[in-house]
Amino acid sequence: MQAEIITIGDEILIGQVVDTNSAFIAKELNKIGVSVYQITSVQDDKEHILKSFKEAQENADIIIITGGLGPTKDDITKHTIAEYFNDTLVQDDAVLKNIEELWKKYIKEPLSQINKDQALIPSKSEALMNRFGSAPGMWIENQNKTFISLPGVPFEMKALIQNEVLPRLQEKYELPFILHKTLLTYGLGESMLAARIETWQDNLPNYIKLAYLPGLGKVRLRLSANGTNEEKITKEVEKQTALVIPLIQDFFVGFEDEETSLELKIGKRLAELNKTISVAESCTGGMIAERITANPGASVYFKGGIVSYATQAKTDVLGISKAIIKKHSVVSTQVAEAMAKAVQKLFKTDYAIAVTGNAGPTKGDADAEVGTVCIAIVSPFKVYAEEFHLGNHRTKVIHKAVNKAFEMLQKEILKN
Amino acid sequence: MQAEIITIGDEILIGQVVDTNSAFIAKELNKIGVSVYQITSVQDDKEHILKSFKEAQENADIIIITGGLGPTKDDITKHTIAEYFNDTLVQDDAVLKNIEELWKKYIKEPLSQINKDQALIPSKSEALMNRFGSAPGMWIENQNKTFISLPGVPFEMKALIQNEVLPRLQEKYELPFILHKTLLTYGLGESMLAARIETWQDNLPNYIKLAYLPGLGKVRLRLSANGTNEEKITKEVEKQTALVIPLIQDFFVGFEDEETSLELKIGKRLAELNKTISVAESCTGGMIAERITANPGASVYFKGGIVSYATQAKTDVLGISKAIIKKHSVVSTQVAEAMAKAVQKLFKTDYAIAVTGNAGPTKGDADAEVGTVCIAIVSPFKVYAEEFHLGNHRTKVIHKAVNKAFEMLQKEILKN
Repeated sequence: MQAEIITIGDEILIGQVVDTNSAFIAKELNKIGVSVYQITSVQDDKEHILKSFKEAQENADIIIITGGLGPTKDDITKHTIAEYFNDTLVQDDAVLKNIEELWKKYIKEPLSQINKDQALIPSKSEALMNRFGSAPGMWIENQNKTFISLPGVPFEMKALIQNEVLPRLQEKYELPFILHKTLLTYGLGESMLAARIETWQDNLPNYIKLAYLPGLGKVRLRLSANGTNEEKITKEVEKQTALVIPLIQDFFVGFEDEETSLELKIGKRLAELNKTISVAESCTGGMIAERITANPGASVYFKGGIVSYATQAKTDVLGISKAIIKKHSVVSTQVAEAMAKAVQKLFKTDYAIAVTGNAGPTKGDADAEVGTVCIAIVSPFKVYAEEFHLGNHRTKVIHKAVNKAFEMLQKEILKN
Repeated sequence: MQAEIITIGDEILIGQVVDTNSAFIAKELNKIGVSVYQITSVQDDKEHILKSFKEAQENADIIIITGGLGPTKDDITKHTIAEYFNDTLVQDDAVLKNIEELWKKYIKEPLSQINKDQALIPSKSEALMNRFGSAPGMWIENQNKTFISLPGVPFEMKALIQNEVLPRLQEKYELPFILHKTLLTYGLGESMLAARIETWQDNLPNYIKLAYLPGLGKVRLRLSANGTNEEKITKEVEKQTALVIPLIQDFFVGFEDEETSLELKIGKRLAELNKTISVAESCTGGMIAERITANPGASVYFKGGIVSYATQAKTDVLGISKAIIKKHSVVSTQVAEAMAKAVQKLFKTDYAIAVTGNAGPTKGDADAEVGTVCIAIVSPFKVYAEEFHLGNHRTKVIHKAVNKAFEMLQKEILKN
């Protein structure tokens, strides 16, 4: 069963907006056994949209369309769908009622005609109720193909995918089983990793594909399998995983399941251990705190942090002695350790992370070369720090430093 | 002049990776007058890649391909390009030399055969030197069409686009002028905004298109024009902009130019005023600090911040009195103001932002309903706070709160 995703909107083609919807939809479809053949982003242009529908209908069984359903004049998806199916727009009373309720509850302004017109849908389509906005989803079956049109606003689209689209697809189609398993490795390059596991890779059964996904300081290895025999696939992927881990033991840090980032793993473990954490950040500027708190429930283990961006903040707020900064420089393992101990004490936590470094592009307050980052971890058992040289690309240095900090912390926490 | 972007990689089609490269490329192409007709993401599959090349060649003059150039076995783009052009791979000595230098400088391990093979390129192609990685870009001209293949690693791709691709395209083609101007509005919904400016929109000249881009708490209005007469286009877009702003004056906060986020505007203004800022964050968890420090040069005006996630951190670290928290609740304008004043004092800054709120999904430490957020601003002239109700979707609440905080701060700073 193959799907194609079509995203409609000039904003994507001029680069004003990154299309994040497609990745979400693809991941959700994979979970129920639907593969995505292609993702196509097209303009808010009738002829272009019609052409993309025609091509997608040749490639795929399920065509999921997002975007172009707003109330304003630049949104033409609905009329174009009606034209494609030789259809006319008719009012859906349930949709109109939903819009009226949304307006009453949240907008508290009179409903205008263009809002009411959001309840018009092609007569051959079935409305998928959108509880978060005025644009309904639409479901149209035609010549054994299923067309599904969804609003482009991410949280509206997500709710419709989960509550309406996936259950209906599962009911309508007999779907195969798709399994992805991703191993996270830190610290070894792609080609060296490939050399280590070459023999293993060559002996993989033909229904398991391996992909390398290099990132900043990490490489993800993804095993993908697809078939009807769920038990066989699951067992074989487990077997192959067990074979490969010993080959990369020193760089393997865990599995990436879809919701499990390194920081979420750490958070779960801290919650299990009933331990807390705080952070002191310099060049990472709050990103470590932000990634920890992006996870619901972080308040159980995360007490808070200090972004001591200026050197003055390190002395005034964290209370790092000027002498230690002068002696070792502000970017040093000694200052990182002092920051970690200070923030641990301030927030009364069991663990703390501290980062001091220079992400560039200029040297700023510090003497250190651009790319030099020192990271310290304090645990109930010890304090230690490491110095890293993470290149000279600002965003890259920041992201790598955040990943390194989580990597160090995870290794420390796993010991306990 | 039309381009098509083809991104190659199963990781995109299973939703493991969001394709951010295409937006970058599209934006850069637009700047030099190249429109993007379509963005197509295809699998690591030879037949599929060949099909996408053929279709793109029919749609566009310039075909930009990213991904699938890694050294490992799942990367097949280079061989597929050779097959498409009936070509063979030959060693490019300059590329090999570049790889050897990169290895000597950064990797410090012996160069393996698969690394050396990265210097093989189709004989009909010209190598585009990649200073950050082993995969070269490739430039192939065929039947009046230009194919450009680039690595998928974002910072390698970006450097190649800017240093090699754009200058060569500008030299090869006579390019038109494309202008996008985006007005940022906060606080009024899409359909109400549309109603306000309907007459103006109906009177736009036909070579100017208007698009509405709704976001969390904001709507962006984009005017796009395309033509050969740069002066005429620029003047007309300026004229239309001047006509529409008075219609939306109370919601208009400024223009979005490509690199100018609200926080960057604020940073520039603070630097001009020679003023500094600090932040105290609760539910936004460091995101305000992170967004400020994502901008190079932030150290000029950003001193640092406190992430006081737990209530205890608000009293211990920021020194907010327990009495005020008890009297008004931890999510209150009073506590937000106290946090802002405390962080301003701690970091000795001119301005400060403070946010206290509950992003959900559960009530956590606070009594406040999920979605309640109080934001305070301290300036050299005054301190004030506002309470907002931002819905019940965690990520949405966090992002909306961050945007609201920058919006409040921008309004305050513009006054000075």
